[in-house]
Amino acid sequence: MSCKDLVNTQDFNKNEILDIVNLGLTIKKCIKNGYYPQILKNKTLGMIFQQSSTRTRVSFETAMQQLGGHAQYLAPGQIQLGTHETMEDTGKVLSSLTDILMARVDKHETVVDLAKTSSVPVINGMSDYNHPTQEIGDLTTMIEYLPEGKNIGDCKVVFVGDATQVCASLMMISTKMGMDFIHFGPKGHQLSEEFLQIGRKNCEFSGGSCKVTDSEDALAHADFVYTDVWYGLYNKELSKEERLNIFMPKYQVTEKMMKKAAPHAKFLHCLPATRGEEVIDEVLDAPYSIAFFQAENRLTSIRAILVYLLRHSLPEKTIVSGLKSKLSEMIYKIL
Amino acid sequence: MSCKDLVNTQDFNKNEILDIVNLGLTIKKCIKNGYYPQILKNKTLGMIFQQSSTRTRVSFETAMQQLGGHAQYLAPGQIQLGTHETMEDTGKVLSSLTDILMARVDKHETVVDLAKTSSVPVINGMSDYNHPTQEIGDLTTMIEYLPEGKNIGDCKVVFVGDATQVCASLMMISTKMGMDFIHFGPKGHQLSEEFLQIGRKNCEFSGGSCKVTDSEDALAHADFVYTDVWYGLYNKELSKEERLNIFMPKYQVTEKMMKKAAPHAKFLHCLPATRGEEVIDEVLDAPYSIAFFQAENRLTSIRAILVYLLRHSLPEKTIVSGLKSKLSEMIYKIL
Amino acid sequence: MSCKDLVNTQDFNKNEILDIVNLGLTIKKCIKNGYYPQILKNKTLGMIFQQSSTRTRVSFETAMQQLGGHAQYLAPGQIQLGTHETMEDTGKVLSSLTDILMARVDKHETVVDLAKTSSVPVINGMSDYNHPTQEIGDLTTMIEYLPEGKNIGDCKVVFVGDATQVCASLMMISTKMGMDFIHFGPKGHQLSEEFLQIGRKNCEFSGGSCKVTDSEDALAHADFVYTDVWYGLYNKELSKEERLNIFMPKYQVTEKMMKKAAPHAKFLHCLPATRGEEVIDEVLDAPYSIAFFQAENRLTSIRAILVYLLRHSLPEKTIVSGLKSKLSEMIYKIL
Repeated sequence: MSCKDLVNTQDFNKNEILDIVNLGLTIKKCIKNGYYPQILKNKTLGMIFQQSSTRTRVSFETAMQQLGGHAQYLAPGQIQLGTHETMEDTGKVLSSLTDILMARVDKHETVVDLAKTSSVPVINGMSDYNHPTQEIGDLTTMIEYLPEGKNIGDCKVVFVGDATQVCASLMMISTKMGMDFIHFGPKGHQLSEEFLQIGRKNCEFSGGSCKVTDSEDALAHADFVYTDVWYGLYNKELSKEERLNIFMPKYQVTEKMMKKAAPHAKFLHCLPATRGEEVIDEVLDAPYSIAFFQAENRLTSIRAILVYLLRHSLPEKTIVSGLKSKLSEMIYKIL
Repeated sequence: MSCKDLVNTQDFNKNEILDIVNLGLTIKKCIKNGYYPQILKNKTLGMIFQQSSTRTRVSFETAMQQLGGHAQYLAPGQIQLGTHETMEDTGKVLSSLTDILMARVDKHETVVDLAKTSSVPVINGMSDYNHPTQEIGDLTTMIEYLPEGKNIGDCKVVFVGDATQVCASLMMISTKMGMDFIHFGPKGHQLSEEFLQIGRKNCEFSGGSCKVTDSEDALAHADFVYTDVWYGLYNKELSKEERLNIFMPKYQVTEKMMKKAAPHAKFLHCLPATRGEEVIDEVLDAPYSIAFFQAENRLTSIRAILVYLLRHSLPEKTIVSGLKSKLSEMIYKIL
Repeated sequence: MSCKDLVNTQDFNKNEILDIVNLGLTIKKCIKNGYYPQILKNKTLGMIFQQSSTRTRVSFETAMQQLGGHAQYLAPGQIQLGTHETMEDTGKVLSSLTDILMARVDKHETVVDLAKTSSVPVINGMSDYNHPTQEIGDLTTMIEYLPEGKNIGDCKVVFVGDATQVCASLMMISTKMGMDFIHFGPKGHQLSEEFLQIGRKNCEFSGGSCKVTDSEDALAHADFVYTDVWYGLYNKELSKEERLNIFMPKYQVTEKMMKKAAPHAKFLHCLPATRGEEVIDEVLDAPYSIAFFQAENRLTSIRAILVYLLRHSLPEKTIVSGLKSKLSEMIYKIL
C-alpha cells in the first residue's frame, strides 16, 4: 500500500509514479475533449501557503473545480501553523474540516509534521527541500515529449545552473525513473552530497546515473535541458550582482549551449524565468522550448495527484459507471 | 416566526435552537454516509472577516461546498465596513449580490447594524460580545455526548478560567437549555453582572441555574468541564506573565481537577489551546476529551445554521422529493 | 467577429453591446425565478486585483457560482504582473490554467498587454482609464428604467462632478448608444479633449451628442443624473479640504438640482457614495434614486459579459437543449 501523503516522491516506487502520470494524461485528454469527470464532487481541499505562489495555487484551485470539488485558499498570515497551537492540534482540526490538504511551507519539517498529524492526505506544495508536484508535472512533460523510439528510462536530462529545490527534485524523479541526470553548475552551487546519495541509491534500483559537474561536456547527447532562476528562494535570495558574478556567462542557456545537446533536445524551465539571466529569449521562445506546456502540466499532474490520494474515498458510482472506460480502467488500476 | 439573522442565540427559543441542532446532526449523518444533500445549490455566502480566523472560515467554506453552494472569503482589509460608505449602504449592496452573509467583527454593534440593513440573513461569526455559531456547535457536541440516561436540561457544565466571549456564549446557550451553568474563575475575570442577568432570565423559563464563583467546589457533579485560552482576544490581549499570575495554578484544567467532576465528565475546549497554560496534555488528549469532536461540530452546526436561515429560499424539489426522508422531514419541520 | 476581450467598450459596436445587455436581462429573469442556467459549468475565472475592490470582486465571484463555474481571487500582492517575469509569460501561463481572466489594474496598459498575450478572454475590471463592466451595468440599468415611450437613443444623461473613470466610461457608452451626454463639472476637472474626441466620433455614427460645461443649465431635460465621488482614485486622491473647495456646493447633487432635470429623471451613482459630499441622503434614498438597483446590475452585466466572451466554448447541450427557450435563443444570437 502506498503512502497516504505526497510529501516526497521518494516515498513512492516507479510504478506508482507512472500510474499518477498516466492518470493525469488520461484526465487531461478527457478535459481537452470537453468531458470534465466529476470525480472529486463535494470534496474540499485546504491550501495552506506560508509563501505566496501563483502557478501552484491556481493549478490546485482549477484542478479541484474541474473535477467537481473546491479548494480553499489559506493565504500567508491567514492561518498559523504551530504558533498559537501545536502543529498536531492544527493538523487534527483541519483533518476534520476538509478532505485533503496541501501546504507550501518555509521549512520542510512543517509539511512532514502536518502529514504525520493529519488524518487526511497531505500534499507538499514546495518546501525549502523539494517540490514534488513540480516533479510529477515535469516527468509528465518529458513523457509527452519523448524522443522518437526512446523510453523515459533511456533519456538523459541536464539541469543547468543553481542547485534549487527544483534541481534537487528533478534529480530525484529522473533517477527514480532510471534516467541519466547531470547537474551542470558552478562549485559551491552544486547539489549536495546528501542529495547525490539519494540519487545514487535510486540508480541502484533503476539503472540510471546521477552526477554533478562544472564542465560543459555535460550537455553531450542530452535529450532534455532544464534550468531555473539564479536568485534562490526564501531568505537566501542573491543580489543581481552576486548571481551574475557566479553564473554568467557560463551557465546561461543559449542557442549555442543547446547545440551541444542532442539535435532533438527539448528545453524546460519551471518558470517564472528571468529572461536575459538563466535563459535568453531565443531559447525560451524556440520551437524546442516546452516550458509553457510544462506550466500547463502543473495542472495535469495536480489533478492526478488529487485523485490518486483520494482514490479510497471516491464515490462508488464514479468508479463503476460514471466515467468513460479508459479513465474507469485507470481508477481500477490504482485502487 | 423566528429571527431572520443569527446575531445572538437569545433571539431564538429553546425549540428553535434544538431544531437547528437536530438538523445539523441529520445532515452530518447524511454526509458521513456519502450523501451530500445539495440543498444550497447556487447559493452564495459572503464571509466578512475583520479579524482573521481558521476554524470559522474553513467550516463555513466547507459547509457551503458540501451543500452545493459557495462561500466568498472577504479577508480583513479586503472590504471596508462603514468607512468609505455607510454600513447601511454596504449592507444593501451586499444583499443584492449574495444570498446570505456572515461577519466576524471587532465590535458587536457592527454585526447588529449589518443585520438591520441587510435584506438577506446575517450570521455573527464572533464579535467582542458573543460567538453564537460556537454555541450551537458546543450544544450539538454536548447532546452527542450526553451522560447515559440524562437529558441536556439535566446536565451541569462548568466553564473554567477567563470570561471570554466563548464563556459568555456557553452561559447563554446552556441556561437557555435549562442546564446548570457555573463560571469558575478569579475575581475580576468573572462573567459580568450584565451577562448573569441574561442567564438568570433564561433560567426563569428553562429551570436551569447560572452562577460565578472562585471556589473549586464548582466542579462537583459537573457533566461537562470547558475551558478557553487566558490571553484574551483583540486589543485586550494579556502578556504571558500577566495571565500566569492571574490564573496559575488554580484555574489550569488538570487530571486532578477533572477528578472533582462527575466520573463520566467530558472535557471541552473551543480551541486553539495553549497546552501547558489553561489545559495540560494529559487532559486535552484524554479519552474523556471531546475537544476535537467539538471542533468538527463547528462544521455540523454551521451547515445547519445556513440551511435554517435560508429555508424559505430553498429550491422546492429539495424539500419535496430531492432529499432522503429523514432530512426532508426535518426541513418540513423548520418551515 | 467581435473582440476576444472586453478591455474597452469602444472595441464593440452598438448591436453587440445591446446583445450583451439583453443577455444579462434574460439571465437575471431566469435567476429571479429560481432557474440558474449552468452555462459556465466547469469553467474557471482568474481574477487579478492590483487594487482591492468589493463590488466588482463579489459580483464576478457570485456570477461564476450562479452559472456553475468558479472564480479564483488573486488579491493585490498575491500575483505579480510583469515583475519577476514578463507580462507575456504570465499571460501565457495563466491562459493555460484558467478559461477566462479579469484584471483590475493600476495602469490601463497592463490590462491591454495581458489581453494581447493571453489566449483566453480578458476582462478589464477597471483601470486608471476606464471601467467597461460598470458601463454595461449602467446601460442595463438605464434601459430597465427608460422614461415611458422613449428609446435609449432618445435619452439625455448628465454626469455631475469629477472626471473619474466612471465619468469617462459613461460618456463612451452613452455616446455609443446615441444618447445626449453632458459632463457638468468645474474647469480643470472636466473630461479631457482626448476623451471628447472619442465621444464625438461615436456620435457621428450614433446620432448622439457629447459636451462638457460648468453651467447648471446642463441639467435641463435630463432623463438621468449620475454622479461619483470627488476624492479621485489611486495615488491622485484629493484631501477632503481640497475637494470641498473645488466642488462644493455647486456640484453636490441635491433635490434642488434634481428639480432642474426632467420630472421623471432618475438618479444614478456607481457607489460607494460619500453622503454629504457629492450627494445628499434625500437624493440617494429618494424613490427616483436607482443607485442600488444599479449596484445589483453589476452582477447582471458581469454574468452576461462572462457568457458572451465564453460563448464559443460553451458545452453544446447548453445551447441546444439545456436552457429554457428564451435564453437558448439569445445564445444562438450571439454565436
